[in-house]
Amino acid sequence: MPEYLYQQLEQTLRDEIKSGQRAPADRLPSVRQLCAEHEVSKSTVLVAYGRLESEGLIEARPRSGYFVSAPQKTKKNILQSPAPSQPTSAPAEVSAGQVLVDIMEQGAAFDLLPSTEVSPGNEALRRCLSRAQRQQSSAEQLYYDEPMGLSSLRTQLAQRLGQSGSQIDKNELVITSGCQHALLLALMATTQPGDVVAVESPGYYGVFQLLETLGLQALELPSSAESGISPDALELALQHWNVQALMISPCYATPTGACMPEANKRRILELTQPRGIAIIEDDIYGDCYFGLQRPRSLHSYDDTGSVLLCSSFSKSLSRDLRVGWIAPGRYLEQVKRLKVVTALASSRTLQQGISRFLEEGSLDRHLRHMRQQHRDQCQELQTLIPKYLPMATRCSQPEGGVALWLELPDSVDTVSLYAKARALGITITPGRLFTAQDRYQNFLRMSFAHPWTTKRKEALKKLGKLVLTNGA
Amino acid sequence: MPEYLYQQLEQTLRDEIKSGQRAPADRLPSVRQLCAEHEVSKSTVLVAYGRLESEGLIEARPRSGYFVSAPQKTKKNILQSPAPSQPTSAPAEVSAGQVLVDIMEQGAAFDLLPSTEVSPGNEALRRCLSRAQRQQSSAEQLYYDEPMGLSSLRTQLAQRLGQSGSQIDKNELVITSGCQHALLLALMATTQPGDVVAVESPGYYGVFQLLETLGLQALELPSSAESGISPDALELALQHWNVQALMISPCYATPTGACMPEANKRRILELTQPRGIAIIEDDIYGDCYFGLQRPRSLHSYDDTGSVLLCSSFSKSLSRDLRVGWIAPGRYLEQVKRLKVVTALASSRTLQQGISRFLEEGSLDRHLRHMRQQHRDQCQELQTLIPKYLPMATRCSQPEGGVALWLELPDSVDTVSLYAKARALGITITPGRLFTAQDRYQNFLRMSFAHPWTTKRKEALKKLGKLVLTNGA
Repeated sequence: MPEYLYQQLEQTLRDEIKSGQRAPADRLPSVRQLCAEHEVSKSTVLVAYGRLESEGLIEARPRSGYFVSAPQKTKKNILQSPAPSQPTSAPAEVSAGQVLVDIMEQGAAFDLLPSTEVSPGNEALRRCLSRAQRQQSSAEQLYYDEPMGLSSLRTQLAQRLGQSGSQIDKNELVITSGCQHALLLALMATTQPGDVVAVESPGYYGVFQLLETLGLQALELPSSAESGISPDALELALQHWNVQALMISPCYATPTGACMPEANKRRILELTQPRGIAIIEDDIYGDCYFGLQRPRSLHSYDDTGSVLLCSSFSKSLSRDLRVGWIAPGRYLEQVKRLKVVTALASSRTLQQGISRFLEEGSLDRHLRHMRQQHRDQCQELQTLIPKYLPMATRCSQPEGGVALWLELPDSVDTVSLYAKARALGITITPGRLFTAQDRYQNFLRMSFAHPWTTKRKEALKKLGKLVLTNGA
Repeated sequence: MPEYLYQQLEQTLRDEIKSGQRAPADRLPSVRQLCAEHEVSKSTVLVAYGRLESEGLIEARPRSGYFVSAPQKTKKNILQSPAPSQPTSAPAEVSAGQVLVDIMEQGAAFDLLPSTEVSPGNEALRRCLSRAQRQQSSAEQLYYDEPMGLSSLRTQLAQRLGQSGSQIDKNELVITSGCQHALLLALMATTQPGDVVAVESPGYYGVFQLLETLGLQALELPSSAESGISPDALELALQHWNVQALMISPCYATPTGACMPEANKRRILELTQPRGIAIIEDDIYGDCYFGLQRPRSLHSYDDTGSVLLCSSFSKSLSRDLRVGWIAPGRYLEQVKRLKVVTALASSRTLQQGISRFLEEGSLDRHLRHMRQQHRDQCQELQTLIPKYLPMATRCSQPEGGVALWLELPDSVDTVSLYAKARALGITITPGRLFTAQDRYQNFLRMSFAHPWTTKRKEALKKLGKLVLTNGA
């Protein structure tokens, strides 16, 4: 791993703090102690401490050293995280409802109200795509793109994947029609109808729909809003069931926003690799972190080719591009073939435009702005929730992603709330979408991807009233 | 059917001439006779005769009336059509080779040499797409497109489908990521793993790859290069096998270029409808006709919703757009859902650009030019073949599409020829791609979509020499 030493150290300390191993107000080891313990230089320790300090996780006290900070002010609000989930522990066929297609037909984008805010990255993207269209060569119109996708785009993506610790060559990447398409190819390459696939619960609705469509069984694993699936629960499940693949989002899962601790990522690989289980890693939220550093992908810990890393630009840049990618590890040949069979090819002109956008550094500029914005909007939503929603509402405390996971009082049914809110022009995303079991009826996912304008705050207020008059 | 009366009459006469029922030099009924027989006006008959005359199918002799023309001069060359195919008449699992991915990896586009010719339509398309990118609204970046695709594009497409006789509402259309994606959705909506799907033989390689991927069995039906699958063979097959779906290209099938006579289209529906068999109609070549009128889709004869019409712009405009569509008849709800599950959404910006291109009439202008060009290039290739390829070579006589189907002497193996030609920088499309059986070893498909420049003629000449030194 060509990762810097200070990053390893920083991560170790961060994990220790987040897991509670080092409690608030605990004194951290002296610089000298850490140098000896980890066999690193003084500057390595100082850089790591400096980064954790600016993240707000630790604080320096003059002449006393470094201490673990009290939980951040914004986290000191009355909100509690939802309790870890307890799904039924047996594989089951998936039979999802019609709610997803309904929501998408509203054109409503899983968001309270449509937003029209403009991001500064959009202008650069428009310019790159428009230029690519103007400069399109006739060969691009006359011939299909090669199966893996445009070489220059794959080069750019392979470089970016380095940020998550994944060392990858452009020839190990296949361009797809978005992340959902990448997940489809990953499941088709690793499973047969009837197979059991372990998934997070609650988990991304698109996964449950895929499992149903491909005739696969879902084994829902207990997950917490802090750290994702429980490795212990996975171990137990693997002893009982013949699991073919594990599909997870280690970096800011949807809907919980959970980010898996590094130790858990390693443990999950230790559990799955000897059994030959494929891991399909949905990394679509990986670039949406609030802190200073991108969390490492699970893929970056794997040296056996058993992880298929899937992602796209839909959460980090634009939902309109419909360009995603997959790093399919040892399943490369199957995935390449499935790409051709299911979609034939991708648009070269579009890939040219995106490749140029990445080359000129516009994505990184856009992301820096977006992360700041998301973090602020997340905090604002966390202050709005206790104001407008029932006191007993619990809420996730994510450090990335684009949404909060809300647990309303037991008496609230968010599917019927969905219909009532729609009548007021407000869209919510009911918890029932995030499982194939009969669960999360009183949960909902709420996006913080857009600014809290007066109108949007009013919508939240109206929704709160609706909740109060409907069961809470 | 709101079709004009003259079109019905014209089609009846055309079918009678093409089927040989009316032979060359036969005198056609007088205008008065036809009026009485078909209960139509004199002007209707005159319009129909006028159109058949300008198509070259009939000729007016002063004071004698109308006569069936001798076969066109260009068809009088020494080329003979390949004999109708005789595939094994039992369903079989598909296990396609690697040749398709190989060819696509060459970036070689199933064509002798890369072409760089520019079509006049391209400039208008570039302008429309570039403008759509520049004018993209933030909502287009922030939210996913609705499941069926952009309403304005569907309106344009529904109008165009009228040209093939299909009366359809925009709300019966779903936008896909190209035609291959549409075919995938159609098969997923109508079949289960293990089902038998009847297909043309030879037929489109993309279909065989889909059948293999979805665990379906292929029942290959005998087809001729003139009229496509034999309805008699289909009838026999349906008596023996439990066929779930029939997948065909009635309008210029690939590789043969066959166009199914109208009577056969009706007969196929009569055979399949009572059995509840779904018909997946691949209409991607439907706009690539040489004559004056677009052939009718099989879909246009169906009033039970059993035909799923699939198409895209890849053959008629640009292989780079990756936008297709499906009119799934009674399978609309399933297809809509499968679209979301496999691809989530389409790009609205791209659809805006295409919609504008259609609205301003640019596609029709482009197609008029393209058809003329294709017809000329087809004729030129038909004169080049006897010049450069072995005397015994047989060749299809299509009236549309973009390629010829060549039968070389039995001793030629086009798969090994493929490798030898590649070494010279020349790409051929071996016949073996167009079946799941061990057939068509001495066949190849040859595109006439590009002008016969000196370089391309030289490539054909080199290929001819290679054939002569390798078995013929």
